[in-house]
Amino acid sequence: MKRAIFNGKLVEEDTLKVGVLSPTVTSSYSVYETLRVINSRAVFLRDHLMRLKKSSDEIYLPLKVSEIEISEWIENLIKCEDISSAQLRITHSEEGIFITYSDLIAYPDSYYEDGVKCIYFFGERFMPTVKTSNRLLSTLAMKRAESKGAFEALLVNRRERVTEGTRTNFYAIADKSLYTAEDELVLSGVTRTRVIKIAKELGYKVIFEAPKYDDIKYFDSVFISSTSMAALPVSEIGDVKMKRDRWQDIIRIKDEIRKME
Amino acid sequence: MKRAIFNGKLVEEDTLKVGVLSPTVTSSYSVYETLRVINSRAVFLRDHLMRLKKSSDEIYLPLKVSEIEISEWIENLIKCEDISSAQLRITHSEEGIFITYSDLIAYPDSYYEDGVKCIYFFGERFMPTVKTSNRLLSTLAMKRAESKGAFEALLVNRRERVTEGTRTNFYAIADKSLYTAEDELVLSGVTRTRVIKIAKELGYKVIFEAPKYDDIKYFDSVFISSTSMAALPVSEIGDVKMKRDRWQDIIRIKDEIRKME
Repeated sequence: MKRAIFNGKLVEEDTLKVGVLSPTVTSSYSVYETLRVINSRAVFLRDHLMRLKKSSDEIYLPLKVSEIEISEWIENLIKCEDISSAQLRITHSEEGIFITYSDLIAYPDSYYEDGVKCIYFFGERFMPTVKTSNRLLSTLAMKRAESKGAFEALLVNRRERVTEGTRTNFYAIADKSLYTAEDELVLSGVTRTRVIKIAKELGYKVIFEAPKYDDIKYFDSVFISSTSMAALPVSEIGDVKMKRDRWQDIIRIKDEIRKME
Repeated sequence: MKRAIFNGKLVEEDTLKVGVLSPTVTSSYSVYETLRVINSRAVFLRDHLMRLKKSSDEIYLPLKVSEIEISEWIENLIKCEDISSAQLRITHSEEGIFITYSDLIAYPDSYYEDGVKCIYFFGERFMPTVKTSNRLLSTLAMKRAESKGAFEALLVNRRERVTEGTRTNFYAIADKSLYTAEDELVLSGVTRTRVIKIAKELGYKVIFEAPKYDDIKYFDSVFISSTSMAALPVSEIGDVKMKRDRWQDIIRIKDEIRKME
């Protein structure tokens, strides 16, 4: 039986439940993080816990335990469950802190070689800088993407700009410039920070301006990033094929992120 | 021990739980209705079930049972729990249908005599015509309202128009005109339909146009409506006192709705 941590205690995962009348269910009142465990170590843990704290504060649900305690709980779970690699999830609601794990998400090499298909979805997340369970827009956008055989839905805001995906950050390359949305419009991705750092090291000028969706076809190439995919090139959006002029740089960014883990 | 209905079966209410990794929790993927039981009868039941069906369809979570079955479950709960009056909640998620009840919400007479205080909150609900648990905006707006000693937060959209409250519809009266938001901007309130009908009977011209928040002070009076409050006058919004020139009509609308129940 798979186990998990609830408020510091090791419990069986299937006991982790919340009341159907709790604000967690009735009002999507919770925040979360997902992170990777590689070689029995939680990757970029400090960054994820800092963001969890920020998200919690933003919805007026402050953490009642320190980041150090949560780190210890995670270490304990990794040890007791003898986890080598996994996808880890921290959920913080009024009930407390749940730490669960599942198989590491790994995408086939072909995704990185051929790129993935995306669609556009018109909408803006409420509190885009915060990672909350208020995810109905993202859920419906992903349902639409799946129905079109696409891997991700890219959100287009009221100014017709592509800000982010439902679970990814978004980037467009033109010559030696990397365009990505203004910080206040998107989640401050733990992987995003690294994408930007590596892009700069590769000689890119990083421009914080979400590109117009009508202009995307003119870019040299576009890609998405997240904890589980690192950096992943986009081959087409809707019916429009993307160029692959600087694809090798995207793969290089991906490889560099994986080396940091 | 209080009981409830889960997928047709009578169960103890505190057994109604959902997994912390279910889309119900992680993605606010559920819809709901709240209604009143008066004299052991669910009020406006047909309307509430029609809206539940519509909400379910809109988030691609179609009801698996008929409205007739749900009605029978509700009747059964009312009988088995010997309910005379109550607030009833129907929650529909991937787990199924939960029917729970709590004490009838009754506001003191003074609320109707003196009106209630509101605040403005800038924001728009995602899918405003659908009643979902994607309620983080409403939750944060209500937290702000409570911190200011206010009863309700009125949402102001990007066009500076007052569309609705976090759990209410909103109306402004000028002479014999009643202003309320365009249908597509707000929840099609079960009580709202009745407010509009009664206002017309009282000789009002109903204009479907959400008023600008800067103009609200010029109206003769403003009010909110919901299942639990019927029609309730607003005495002030933020620091601005509202006029009470047609207050008696608001009370008349409230009384007429209560008579229909």
